[in-house]
Amino acid sequence: MTGYVRELALAARAAQRQIATCSAVQRQALLEAMAVQLLDSQASILVANAQDMGQAAANGASKATLDRLLLDPARIAGMASALREVAAQADPLGAVTRSETRPNGVVVERQRIPLGLVAMIFEARPNVTAEAAALCLKAGNAVLLRGGSEAAASNAAIAACLHAALRAQGLPEAAVSLVADTAREHVLELLQLSDLIDLAVPRGGESLIRFVAEHARVPVIKHYKGVCHLYVDRAADLDTALALLIDGKVSRPGVCNALETLLVHREVAAAFLPKALAALKARQVQVRGDAGVRTFDATLPDATEADFDAEFLDLIIAAKVVESLDAAIAHIHRYTSDHTEVIVTEDAAAAEAFVRAIRSSAVMVNASSRFNDGGQLGLGAEIGISTTRLHAYGPMGVEALTIERFVVRGQGQVRHPDLQG
Amino acid sequence: MTGYVRELALAARAAQRQIATCSAVQRQALLEAMAVQLLDSQASILVANAQDMGQAAANGASKATLDRLLLDPARIAGMASALREVAAQADPLGAVTRSETRPNGVVVERQRIPLGLVAMIFEARPNVTAEAAALCLKAGNAVLLRGGSEAAASNAAIAACLHAALRAQGLPEAAVSLVADTAREHVLELLQLSDLIDLAVPRGGESLIRFVAEHARVPVIKHYKGVCHLYVDRAADLDTALALLIDGKVSRPGVCNALETLLVHREVAAAFLPKALAALKARQVQVRGDAGVRTFDATLPDATEADFDAEFLDLIIAAKVVESLDAAIAHIHRYTSDHTEVIVTEDAAAAEAFVRAIRSSAVMVNASSRFNDGGQLGLGAEIGISTTRLHAYGPMGVEALTIERFVVRGQGQVRHPDLQG
Repeated sequence: MTGYVRELALAARAAQRQIATCSAVQRQALLEAMAVQLLDSQASILVANAQDMGQAAANGASKATLDRLLLDPARIAGMASALREVAAQADPLGAVTRSETRPNGVVVERQRIPLGLVAMIFEARPNVTAEAAALCLKAGNAVLLRGGSEAAASNAAIAACLHAALRAQGLPEAAVSLVADTAREHVLELLQLSDLIDLAVPRGGESLIRFVAEHARVPVIKHYKGVCHLYVDRAADLDTALALLIDGKVSRPGVCNALETLLVHREVAAAFLPKALAALKARQVQVRGDAGVRTFDATLPDATEADFDAEFLDLIIAAKVVESLDAAIAHIHRYTSDHTEVIVTEDAAAAEAFVRAIRSSAVMVNASSRFNDGGQLGLGAEIGISTTRLHAYGPMGVEALTIERFVVRGQGQVRHPDLQG
Repeated sequence: MTGYVRELALAARAAQRQIATCSAVQRQALLEAMAVQLLDSQASILVANAQDMGQAAANGASKATLDRLLLDPARIAGMASALREVAAQADPLGAVTRSETRPNGVVVERQRIPLGLVAMIFEARPNVTAEAAALCLKAGNAVLLRGGSEAAASNAAIAACLHAALRAQGLPEAAVSLVADTAREHVLELLQLSDLIDLAVPRGGESLIRFVAEHARVPVIKHYKGVCHLYVDRAADLDTALALLIDGKVSRPGVCNALETLLVHREVAAAFLPKALAALKARQVQVRGDAGVRTFDATLPDATEADFDAEFLDLIIAAKVVESLDAAIAHIHRYTSDHTEVIVTEDAAAAEAFVRAIRSSAVMVNASSRFNDGGQLGLGAEIGISTTRLHAYGPMGVEALTIERFVVRGQGQVRHPDLQG
């Protein structure tokens, strides 16, 4: 089996040359053709997905996994519309982002070029196949897709649509290469291909990310867990605090930008916590509180160290009363996963101190943690939310799949004219 | 010994918080104070360096190593002046690089923050200690410095100056942490500290870079070899071509932006090569030629596959006659190290085709490969020249030691208002 992924990667790299030299118009047309193919192939995609769903159910997959795996006409339409959104974005390639004439007359330009070959390693969500391919192609890259075995039939059906669109545009199918054999050893092989793969992006549960980080010889941008904090400052508007708490915890508890920990300044605890605990209870949220929180409801379970470290991905929240803004910041520094932190305050100085001290990928001032998302932040779509403080931090869109390089234009300038003649 | 580097890294991370919250004025003053300390401590630095030089000579170090290791008053002055140049640069931190108001009224800002803790792993050059520290501190980072054992005394003497300046400014010495025990096992330990180190930058020979790439669990930006090509197009100005050839090969053959391969279009071979071969010979450059080159001088050694793959770092160049621009591009694609490639041409279309096809960190049109350097390209100084197409590509200055993150400012906006009330 050795070399199976290498062969795929070599073909993808060769195909990338052609994608990189396509015009912006061609790449846009390609993505629009892919959207049309997905919609036209809805029936066959649904058949393939039903096969995956049946197998997963038979294997005892969790409700959450089945939900991530499921495709229906609305989700297929959603994929097509994401492709069209990416297609419509400004083209990131070739543009000169900066230009400077040096004292010796050479013009130094910075110019965006594709990364090259991007490998996506993901789990149950088949929509990643289409969306990651679209983002990579828009940025002139080829993509190697290794989805989870549970979504194998769905991913193959979606990839068939993408390939049909590539063929119709006279472009090589290998620009979107699916690692169809989902054996774990092929992931290991992929992670060693440092001469062929420019970036690997793992998306999925903690164990997948850890596996990739441990074995990778290729550059990796981690899309890791979100232990997101909401801090209610002593100068908070308490109605705003309650609204952000409910939105952050309840609107979609299974995602990485959901809230996991509530921190409340001691001075507003009595005014805020009784209302907040009641509102959470009314929405079936279990609160695990420290001693300060439990003075308002002694029936709550104690929050342990592990609770403050947890990404519950469920209707559970850890809560704590803090003595000060600094204590809130210290708590966050200790437990943060560098994803998203929120402060609720009407005190501009407190907000700025929080923003300055916190170095997570997104800091929200009086806004919901759920806004840490490519679509919400104006990127159009995202390949994931980076928690690696390198290359890209936070949601990664098309631009994050490019790199700036230098182009120097001269009229024969040299560094050591004395060596000439 | 286990935990030795972890303890250093923990202290450096704690110190980084203080550096990150310094004002721009404080960080500038710190770097200027470091420059003064270096100049004031010249005598003790020279004593330490003489000790390293004596040890290295006794160990039979190469002339190139001894040259890299040597400090003299001019080189110490050079270090001090590099520190002042970095000090004087625009502050990279805190500035809002982009800002957009979304339809729901939240303001989405991008803001530069430090990477955190940067580890430099380098070999004989003691000036890296001062320059890497300056760049990292300017960008609000702490730095962990692991220099080569051959420069241990010099590095310790330089670090003592940097620490004195930190102390004088009331800042923690640990912001610049030297891994004083240079045992190889400590490099291995360093490379595992993925919870503490945000970026590792190896600078040195190929074997060091390979060792780091193989063992790292922390993010690495490789500063790898430069197999730089000069392509003389059929529409080249041949005087320009000759000047760029001599500058690129002769002005400093031991550095990564020196030329290693010459490619000449068949149509200008007869007009260019006899002059070029004579000029190279006059400067003691050995040419290894393919059959096309050897028609002009049959005494030249044959260029082998290994020669076209080699970073000679010496007065040697591989040379080849190519049939076309496309053949030159194909040769470069096969042998490039993604560092620097040069085209000499008066044909704008050929220049653009070359720029478009080549994806090295710097492409030069009618300018010397030796300009791929942070100072020459206007960055002021550089921590190295990245050949990793991720985060930074080409010379890395202060800005490349920061990352953009998101700050969202709202008035209580939520994603799902229907969940409220």
